[in-house]
Amino acid sequence: MANDKKMVREITPMDEDFAQWYTDIVKKAELIDYSSMRGCVIMRPYAQAIWENIQKIFDGMIKETGHENVAMPIFIPESLLNKEKDHVEGFAPEVAWVTHGGSEKLEERLCVRPTSETLFCEHYAHIIQSWRDLPKLYNQWCSVVRWEKTTRPFLRTREFWWQEGHTAHATEEDARKETLDILDLYEKLATEYLCMPVIKGRKTDREKFAGAMETYTIEAMMHDGKALQSGTSHYFGDGFAKAFGVQYTDKENKLQYVHQTSWGISTRLIGGIIMTHGDNEGLVLPPAIAPIQVVIVPVAAHKPGVLEKAAEIAETLKKAGLRVKLDDSDQSPGWKYAQYEMKGVPLRLEIGPRDIENGNCVLVRRDNREKTVVALDNLVESTQQMLKDFAKAIYEKAKANLEGNITPAHNIQEMKDILQKRVGFVKAMWCGDEHCEEVIKNETGMPSRCIPFEQEHIDDVCPVCGKPAKHMVIFGIAY
Amino acid sequence: MANDKKMVREITPMDEDFAQWYTDIVKKAELIDYSSMRGCVIMRPYAQAIWENIQKIFDGMIKETGHENVAMPIFIPESLLNKEKDHVEGFAPEVAWVTHGGSEKLEERLCVRPTSETLFCEHYAHIIQSWRDLPKLYNQWCSVVRWEKTTRPFLRTREFWWQEGHTAHATEEDARKETLDILDLYEKLATEYLCMPVIKGRKTDREKFAGAMETYTIEAMMHDGKALQSGTSHYFGDGFAKAFGVQYTDKENKLQYVHQTSWGISTRLIGGIIMTHGDNEGLVLPPAIAPIQVVIVPVAAHKPGVLEKAAEIAETLKKAGLRVKLDDSDQSPGWKYAQYEMKGVPLRLEIGPRDIENGNCVLVRRDNREKTVVALDNLVESTQQMLKDFAKAIYEKAKANLEGNITPAHNIQEMKDILQKRVGFVKAMWCGDEHCEEVIKNETGMPSRCIPFEQEHIDDVCPVCGKPAKHMVIFGIAY
Repeated sequence: MANDKKMVREITPMDEDFAQWYTDIVKKAELIDYSSMRGCVIMRPYAQAIWENIQKIFDGMIKETGHENVAMPIFIPESLLNKEKDHVEGFAPEVAWVTHGGSEKLEERLCVRPTSETLFCEHYAHIIQSWRDLPKLYNQWCSVVRWEKTTRPFLRTREFWWQEGHTAHATEEDARKETLDILDLYEKLATEYLCMPVIKGRKTDREKFAGAMETYTIEAMMHDGKALQSGTSHYFGDGFAKAFGVQYTDKENKLQYVHQTSWGISTRLIGGIIMTHGDNEGLVLPPAIAPIQVVIVPVAAHKPGVLEKAAEIAETLKKAGLRVKLDDSDQSPGWKYAQYEMKGVPLRLEIGPRDIENGNCVLVRRDNREKTVVALDNLVESTQQMLKDFAKAIYEKAKANLEGNITPAHNIQEMKDILQKRVGFVKAMWCGDEHCEEVIKNETGMPSRCIPFEQEHIDDVCPVCGKPAKHMVIFGIAY
Repeated sequence: MANDKKMVREITPMDEDFAQWYTDIVKKAELIDYSSMRGCVIMRPYAQAIWENIQKIFDGMIKETGHENVAMPIFIPESLLNKEKDHVEGFAPEVAWVTHGGSEKLEERLCVRPTSETLFCEHYAHIIQSWRDLPKLYNQWCSVVRWEKTTRPFLRTREFWWQEGHTAHATEEDARKETLDILDLYEKLATEYLCMPVIKGRKTDREKFAGAMETYTIEAMMHDGKALQSGTSHYFGDGFAKAFGVQYTDKENKLQYVHQTSWGISTRLIGGIIMTHGDNEGLVLPPAIAPIQVVIVPVAAHKPGVLEKAAEIAETLKKAGLRVKLDDSDQSPGWKYAQYEMKGVPLRLEIGPRDIENGNCVLVRRDNREKTVVALDNLVESTQQMLKDFAKAIYEKAKANLEGNITPAHNIQEMKDILQKRVGFVKAMWCGDEHCEEVIKNETGMPSRCIPFEQEHIDDVCPVCGKPAKHMVIFGIAY
């Protein structure tokens, strides 16, 4: 593309201005464009390809565990949204309202779905009659709309793309198990595929989803020490079932309410990938979701045999199931190096006349720029191994950042001091009283992120009220 | 499911009431449910799985030919929609308008996209600068909204799911080629995968897309002789480019307008599949898109070894890449037969103690109920071959229906007489004057379907005005 030359090597260093660094990557790696539809984004082919790879992985996981996809209407009539009190209070202030169809004023306003609990509940009330109909394990991939005031690409936009799972179960036990099973899948997706370490835990009541009894979360840490809530799984009990009349007859022929869950991950994961792995040269993409895993750059491409050999290598790697791009354009190798570094391609394969003579090529890793001379005879195995090493290395690096930036605190002053030095997570005890959580948030600016499953004993008492502590909580500033 | 027993064998015969037959299938095969969001539908897991199979096939085709997926905003500001005159006139009367975000009235109304030409054009104006940036071959999978008054599942609903391709090219020639290349892919999808024969042709000016210079179409014939427009591909010339300022500098450094196309297929294809292949027992699904290609029904399942053998067979077929379901529920075999016939599963595999003794099983075809005893040793090959035969047979049957119901007519009275006998397509000559087309529509109720690529000479003159004929046109009543 003509303007690619301008595109590369023009990125604000991370330490200088992290927010600008992020915005630069989003633009220069050609992830996002803007339109006159303010607050929304255009997912360009490269971002869409990343999202499709994430979708494919997670869709496979949930189908393997018996979930089925459906598609619900894009609109929710106001009266339907109003059926569950807590839920509507949480969402009504931030929905987009359709008031006219064609030239006619509608009798009832419709909101563009901010989430689809209400639609799923209405549907479940139709199709669930007996214990034989349970569980219902449904999911949909779609976009949802929330009328945000301030927006940032991937992290907070008026429209975003996600999956929303909605399940109905005969018993509380089954529903609770589903909630946590899904959280495990989210953890697996984040750690094994996105190379993004996370803390698993439960949200406090203050931070839980509107209408949920419990919300579980995976929380990741970005380069700048801020948190990214990366996936949530909600247990609803029978609250929605009662509001929507979702009942079944059990084996004893008694009428029972179902127990429900919902859970979601979204395109904000792409923002998480940028801020977990990216560097001052641009994106760094985990191999499992990289649209291009290996870019082949011919050196001295005009010399006889070079392009042919490059094409042959591309074919060999593709046949082995790798996502490969051969860039045989007339741009210089140096230009191409910068270009694909910006785009975060994990491996660059350089091949020139001398390499061909020696039966070799050069593989260069995006993360540490390490160059390895590799025998062409053994190329597929070497490449696959190097992608594995690459994934492990970026995961370990992110893990070190996470683990090195969680600091215990025994009182509010310590929390402030920690944040003063460097933004990160703070772990502290908590009595369980929402007021104390509120005090910490107001004084330090940090809301609670979660009550981690892996608890530690830091203190006997709550740092605010001095009463006996119930949990260790992670606090942190979040995107 | 508890209410499955009610579900099967309760379907209005096609000849008695075709519309009711269709509605019955949609419901009893568990394709669609309704919600309080009137005019929209819920795509249940079985319909969604069919759609995902169609998506996968067509997405593969377009990616192989260099197209890339993107995701555009769900909303179009009114001023953006207004930029191309013909286009806005075509769509403004049938869009849903968002007027409020949260509690605030918006400064400008937003429509929920009925189609996304305007958004793609705005984006192309941003990202296209030089001839090197062309072509841009973009597509998106999404749902769109059109505020229809009367709706029917799959065929006409206020929201439907589709793909919309939008491409920009340096020259008219390239854009015209793309328009027709895509039409070929649509034909391939319809005939080879959906077993649905189609007529390829060009729409008259009266029937073309709002803003297009030319619209091409594939037209299928349903059981009842009505037409289903099953996919359209539009050539825009530089009309949109001029309205939106989509320009590039050519190799001579001169500023030029791009030439554009757009093209789409939608979930109405599922309606087409129902009405092309379905019968009085329910759905009949083409193997390429059937969520279940082979259902295994154990006979005398309580006898030792039967369920084990059935599970073993299921594994074998799955490993061969087939989509298989083993129904080992406690329902009777007869109940299961009816159930999977309703769902249109192409092959039923029956296996009982005697079969196992003999090293056989029985395969039953959904379309003609033909039973074949098949050796277990050779099961994968037999099954694959039978699925191929099945696909060929339902295609040939649909082709016979199409070809047997296109009747030539030399005047309007003949057209009326033909329709009187049986609804079908009528082929007749046409002078090219929109007035004559209008007369035919008003007098016979048939709009033109297309000017087929395969022309015949039926007459020298137009049947309405008697002036020299330019084309042979297909007329027909359409969904």
